[in-house]
Amino acid sequence: MKAALFVELGRIVLDEKPVPEVGANDALIRITTTTICGTDIHILKGEYPVEKGLTIGHEPVGIIEKLGSNVRGYKEGERVIAGAICPSGYSNACLDGLASQDGQSAAHGLKPMGGLRFGNTIDGSQAEYLLVPDATANLSQVTDALTDEQVLMCPDIMSTGFAGAESGNIKIGDTVAVFSQGPIGLCATAGAKLRGATTIIAVETVPKRIEMSKRIGADIVVDFGAGDPVDEIMHITQGRGVDVAIEALGLQSTFESCLRILKPGGTLSCLGVYSEDLTIPLDAFHTGLGDNRIVTSLCPGGKERMRRLMNVIASERFDFRPPITHHFDLEQIEDAYELFANQRDGVLKIAITP
Amino acid sequence: MKAALFVELGRIVLDEKPVPEVGANDALIRITTTTICGTDIHILKGEYPVEKGLTIGHEPVGIIEKLGSNVRGYKEGERVIAGAICPSGYSNACLDGLASQDGQSAAHGLKPMGGLRFGNTIDGSQAEYLLVPDATANLSQVTDALTDEQVLMCPDIMSTGFAGAESGNIKIGDTVAVFSQGPIGLCATAGAKLRGATTIIAVETVPKRIEMSKRIGADIVVDFGAGDPVDEIMHITQGRGVDVAIEALGLQSTFESCLRILKPGGTLSCLGVYSEDLTIPLDAFHTGLGDNRIVTSLCPGGKERMRRLMNVIASERFDFRPPITHHFDLEQIEDAYELFANQRDGVLKIAITP
Amino acid sequence: MKAALFVELGRIVLDEKPVPEVGANDALIRITTTTICGTDIHILKGEYPVEKGLTIGHEPVGIIEKLGSNVRGYKEGERVIAGAICPSGYSNACLDGLASQDGQSAAHGLKPMGGLRFGNTIDGSQAEYLLVPDATANLSQVTDALTDEQVLMCPDIMSTGFAGAESGNIKIGDTVAVFSQGPIGLCATAGAKLRGATTIIAVETVPKRIEMSKRIGADIVVDFGAGDPVDEIMHITQGRGVDVAIEALGLQSTFESCLRILKPGGTLSCLGVYSEDLTIPLDAFHTGLGDNRIVTSLCPGGKERMRRLMNVIASERFDFRPPITHHFDLEQIEDAYELFANQRDGVLKIAITP
Amino acid sequence: MKAALFVELGRIVLDEKPVPEVGANDALIRITTTTICGTDIHILKGEYPVEKGLTIGHEPVGIIEKLGSNVRGYKEGERVIAGAICPSGYSNACLDGLASQDGQSAAHGLKPMGGLRFGNTIDGSQAEYLLVPDATANLSQVTDALTDEQVLMCPDIMSTGFAGAESGNIKIGDTVAVFSQGPIGLCATAGAKLRGATTIIAVETVPKRIEMSKRIGADIVVDFGAGDPVDEIMHITQGRGVDVAIEALGLQSTFESCLRILKPGGTLSCLGVYSEDLTIPLDAFHTGLGDNRIVTSLCPGGKERMRRLMNVIASERFDFRPPITHHFDLEQIEDAYELFANQRDGVLKIAITP
Repeated sequence: MKAALFVELGRIVLDEKPVPEVGANDALIRITTTTICGTDIHILKGEYPVEKGLTIGHEPVGIIEKLGSNVRGYKEGERVIAGAICPSGYSNACLDGLASQDGQSAAHGLKPMGGLRFGNTIDGSQAEYLLVPDATANLSQVTDALTDEQVLMCPDIMSTGFAGAESGNIKIGDTVAVFSQGPIGLCATAGAKLRGATTIIAVETVPKRIEMSKRIGADIVVDFGAGDPVDEIMHITQGRGVDVAIEALGLQSTFESCLRILKPGGTLSCLGVYSEDLTIPLDAFHTGLGDNRIVTSLCPGGKERMRRLMNVIASERFDFRPPITHHFDLEQIEDAYELFANQRDGVLKIAITP
Repeated sequence: MKAALFVELGRIVLDEKPVPEVGANDALIRITTTTICGTDIHILKGEYPVEKGLTIGHEPVGIIEKLGSNVRGYKEGERVIAGAICPSGYSNACLDGLASQDGQSAAHGLKPMGGLRFGNTIDGSQAEYLLVPDATANLSQVTDALTDEQVLMCPDIMSTGFAGAESGNIKIGDTVAVFSQGPIGLCATAGAKLRGATTIIAVETVPKRIEMSKRIGADIVVDFGAGDPVDEIMHITQGRGVDVAIEALGLQSTFESCLRILKPGGTLSCLGVYSEDLTIPLDAFHTGLGDNRIVTSLCPGGKERMRRLMNVIASERFDFRPPITHHFDLEQIEDAYELFANQRDGVLKIAITP
Repeated sequence: MKAALFVELGRIVLDEKPVPEVGANDALIRITTTTICGTDIHILKGEYPVEKGLTIGHEPVGIIEKLGSNVRGYKEGERVIAGAICPSGYSNACLDGLASQDGQSAAHGLKPMGGLRFGNTIDGSQAEYLLVPDATANLSQVTDALTDEQVLMCPDIMSTGFAGAESGNIKIGDTVAVFSQGPIGLCATAGAKLRGATTIIAVETVPKRIEMSKRIGADIVVDFGAGDPVDEIMHITQGRGVDVAIEALGLQSTFESCLRILKPGGTLSCLGVYSEDLTIPLDAFHTGLGDNRIVTSLCPGGKERMRRLMNVIASERFDFRPPITHHFDLEQIEDAYELFANQRDGVLKIAITP
Repeated sequence: MKAALFVELGRIVLDEKPVPEVGANDALIRITTTTICGTDIHILKGEYPVEKGLTIGHEPVGIIEKLGSNVRGYKEGERVIAGAICPSGYSNACLDGLASQDGQSAAHGLKPMGGLRFGNTIDGSQAEYLLVPDATANLSQVTDALTDEQVLMCPDIMSTGFAGAESGNIKIGDTVAVFSQGPIGLCATAGAKLRGATTIIAVETVPKRIEMSKRIGADIVVDFGAGDPVDEIMHITQGRGVDVAIEALGLQSTFESCLRILKPGGTLSCLGVYSEDLTIPLDAFHTGLGDNRIVTSLCPGGKERMRRLMNVIASERFDFRPPITHHFDLEQIEDAYELFANQRDGVLKIAITP
């Protein structure tokens, strides 16, 4: 089968691989739609190390081709998705309420996500076929009423973005700022609205993203190209600061700005994948006396999470046209990487179809 | 009356001040016992700025001398304590469940603890008399069964230490590390035990503190003088890491060590008052993908908190001999500062009696 | 001044009363708009006992006429609301996070809401003037952008309805049933949507209420006049049951139906004011082994809650035209009671203006 | 092999059964110690229906005899326990944080615990061998430092008792009442202490249980044989009521007494298995306005829970001598049932050894 492999720093190429063998707890999925994520670009650039030869991609939509003998609750031919993070269900972490951190163990040391993650520790979805481990915990059927593209954001982008709002413990009437309105930031904005925030301040400068942000839930947009967003947000909140700040870009500057706009007692919810050490300025941290929280969230996975996210889409709670700006065939995935890595042509997300 | 005043950087001196006027919502307390806190040394050294002439001290035990006309539920002559942080009860922060951060407002900007805090924004307890604002919310009667010294830790040390365990959201069966066993660290150790932690690892090197730590709740003590505590704790936990790490010293090195021993999904609960910017090393933060939380806690105050803490002492849940190592008369408080600031003679806490 | 007084069982009449004296912590409000609540009808019918001569009403909108000497943060002439439940802020209950249950004390025994509640233990809002106790904790300014009628639901109906959703701990993607779509049920429906429920099943039979329910957030309406709603809801959820059921009518039959549609692990959130003992059928309770929760919520009050609720309205999160169907002058309040008590003419809520 | 089978109402007998076949995800355990639970007596009396011929018992300690091909993390010959409730880990309920309610599904309707429970829907532990399904999620190794009898309470009694304290959301300084001090009530008392309750009021009349209760954590014992415990507890709490009441007997009278002693805002945590409809008296429920909660908890299972409970025992947090009063060989289990069903000879728990 065709698959997009990480070959070496700077190169992800389409190549041939054998169709995987199906173990007792596995399911083989024939991919119908997948996409490229910012994390894949981190892999391409060597900022996020994976083994050479690994198939990349962690956002699968497809048809069940073959089920392992122990997999229960599905039929071959059903259309399904699986989350980017595949909890086993049976690890200590899962049973302790930390399903995203499955795989931690003495053997794995402290490696986060040590267990399973498509295109990270096992072969991923940018291929004709994908092997889903612990399939009973991870496959979720897609209703006929939803298209592939409508559910393509569930496995990672939407689950991660919403988690930023959930981990921030947003309450009805909260003021929330979301720094950057890329795909994950947009979903964080939508998630903040879903949890009851009533003043959502999106920070962005790209006109197309500003427009999508307003459509999906932002009440106010602060253009960081037009001045310091910290001053602007303190002005908007009349000096009060925000209840929750969601950082969805992954830079020191946005991390620090988020700290500076937090009210005493406020929460900074980080969704970025960082590339360097972070600094917490003493004043922005109130010397440690501000009752502040800094929380990080890895994309929640598993079939129940996917079921819930698809319900959100089906219920039409907001105008969630998936932020897909481009379409490529799997054969052209190298071109898609080139486009996405350089953020050319106003790209947000690319639908890839084998 | 006599009062210990901050005069200038490096000097806290005993001087005369008028006995305060009692407003409608105030209570005047005749101090019977108080103490010096690490925060007072931060003030002395200019690391924590206060106005010149302010009376220092935020840990009062005393007798009600006079009650304002609106204060309800007390009688003059009753023995009481008041928490270091005095919530009004009527601020938006209080009514939103953030009583320690009372006083935030447009007028105060983002200053944490902007409202009231003895020896910080209003005159404190190292004096013959103390004026307690919003007294109905803040005075808590002391039962005859408890001595002044037994309850002297409630207003700050115990409330703060326990908050470290509470904010860490410790669960039954958790493994918890507490970095440093000064007065607050000791109370964090006790708090971790009270919340159900079953493997409590105290990190300390001073023999007397190690001994107190074991008596109060530590299951294992790691002597950081004998090697890298990170390696030792990872060894003890068989590579699993701790569920919660409590940082009670206030240094970059301990902050960083705490991050490095967290399990994926684990929480770092900060109790330190920091003096410089903090760095979050990228690897210790799992690039932001570890589902980790960093939380800070300011000493919870108010009469209900004080009532609960005194119940803990009265119930003899653990061998809580207050960590008082020295006694001074208020007249000798300058000597007490000299001793405490230099941590001479194995000092932990000093009882000051006017 | 004119005021609607409870005279005896079955009689609430308009009569003269002196304008109240303003104490140090009080504020006197000149009422501009108020309304009649279902609880007032319980009072009228003697099902909810109050003292004879008490002024009824607990939903005030008005202008600050006079402020007590200790009240901070307001100016005379400002337009404000106050919640039906007026927490003092300084009670043990308030400081313990249970502001609605302020007033509990040894003196009050276990009486819930023992402290303060307009038209219940102190004079209420169906009058020309209202005295608000502990005014600093309870007055919340109304922005010019919102009309009296738009904020009239905040003090009770909206705060209570949302609390049903909040106490139920609704999560993104939940299925929620709301039994009955009177004013509180409608607000519970809106609250469920605000917290992220994606399948909201409203149970109602009155066409006008069904229509409002759909506009405000219901995805599906089950007409209990057309068959057993339990069967219908189990069919809709494919036998799975609901995550949260909100009971907003106050009858044994709806309480029991809610239990019967709960999934194992589901929560029944009660908003009804009950008039008789309730029965928990053994089978519907899974003999106590279903990990179910039954929670009750008293209307959260205080200025911060009011601020947040007015934000919800100002943010236009949903099409919240206040469910006001009739207008009466205070002079005609006895007619208004007659109409409302008999639920004539499709009445939902009545605006009363002095 | 020998096994104790439910034959018909009133009869559990020892009989022969084939040793079970081991499927891919199963483990076969050679039982070394097990016990009889109150639930087994409910089964015996027909109050809790199970299929005829089922092996009873859900509290296993034993040696791994054989592992299925997919089971990971164990070796044959290891000594293990498994919780009474065996979550699969891969169900929607498990992945939604409701592991005890695994097995709910459209197919099962609303049956709680629909999936797996030893001696309930699959063969149990009162036998020479036990088949553990989804063994990777459920087996937990026992350290050599702990005896069979020390860990025998973990699978059900201790997990359930602690859950009563955990679901009640006990805070540091809480006052908690525990009604009845049978094995589960004793563990609820211990659990309340582990969560930080400082006034624990145990309600019991049997001298031996009173003694154990005091040793394990009760601060005060109320003898219900000596007067109405409601009056006594209201007196002890000076009219304030308790923060949390734990009902561990399963009767209407204790359920009702618990409601009557709750403070406004307090929680009733039910651990009883009820045999008839329950009544909530209107006054004890404050007509629904008391912000009260009624919660039920089914015994949490899975290997992580078992690991944590064994840590509690190993840490010697309290004087937990297991409440085993009698020992029987599996051959004599019918006699053991006779003794336990009639609560003769001061029996608390019986150790059964094949």
